[in-house]
Amino acid sequence: MSAARPSDLDPALAARLKRDDHGLLAAVVQQWDTGEVLMVGWMDDEALHRTLTSGRCTYWSRSRQEYWVKGETSGHQQWVRSVALDCDGDTVLVRVDQVGAACHTGDRTCFDADLLPAVVVDRSGAVVDGTAAARPAAGPTVGVPSVVTGGADPMEGA
Amino acid sequence: MSAARPSDLDPALAARLKRDDHGLLAAVVQQWDTGEVLMVGWMDDEALHRTLTSGRCTYWSRSRQEYWVKGETSGHQQWVRSVALDCDGDTVLVRVDQVGAACHTGDRTCFDADLLPAVVVDRSGAVVDGTAAARPAAGPTVGVPSVVTGGADPMEGA
Repeated sequence: MSAARPSDLDPALAARLKRDDHGLLAAVVQQWDTGEVLMVGWMDDEALHRTLTSGRCTYWSRSRQEYWVKGETSGHQQWVRSVALDCDGDTVLVRVDQVGAACHTGDRTCFDADLLPAVVVDRSGAVVDGTAAARPAAGPTVGVPSVVTGGADPMEGA
Repeated sequence: MSAARPSDLDPALAARLKRDDHGLLAAVVQQWDTGEVLMVGWMDDEALHRTLTSGRCTYWSRSRQEYWVKGETSGHQQWVRSVALDCDGDTVLVRVDQVGAACHTGDRTCFDADLLPAVVVDRSGAVVDGTAAARPAAGPTVGVPSVVTGGADPMEGA
């Protein structure tokens, strides 16, 4: 669909976006140096424009139906390092310098608290860790280590 | 909304998911060791179930309205290392061992080809690179280096 709200976004760029039913793109936010995936937010054309031109990540709040600048109230700003559009034009990858916690819970990332039980198979098709599939998934698994055996995950806890 | 299609996903886990209007979760896919964000796909309950239990990433194709196992035709499999649900229950972060290119264009990631012009500001609010904002954004910028000055981006080209 087209942009839902008026925007100062470059029309040439706007013409290349493929927005969802609500006029939004998914924005994957990554710490620029460690590679941590911090969170996923949503941007309409104007939020993307503000992110590209202000140096601070700006999102469209689906619940509050308003723009929000990350860190405006929490102090946990996201300073933009780069923004890349994906091959389909429906997602952006925003690399940032994250101050403090990215997650509203106080966790560093929104993916720190709830590791799901998953079977891990290597490239030969051999099961590396099949026990994970039998673990309960009834709630957040804070502190549960990676199910990958045979080596530390360098992204874990980064 | 609830699940759109029948699924064998653990009901306790299914109860914690917040799906979009089409019954889908966003799945951010990351190379487990380098931290590269490879792509974003979409999973319904059954695609998540298959991803958790088979060791291979499975998605719901919004265009074809069918399940697809990444790499089934291309050979570019994604072997699951871990799956984490985010704080809102509407996104998963899937760490994988990606064989070859993740993007259908043949690029390693879906975010390699189209860097957008962005103003870069440091934590003090000082503009590090403001010239980027004036660059045209009319098409993919293959080969254009990161707009961050003063240091290499360790994630770039990883």
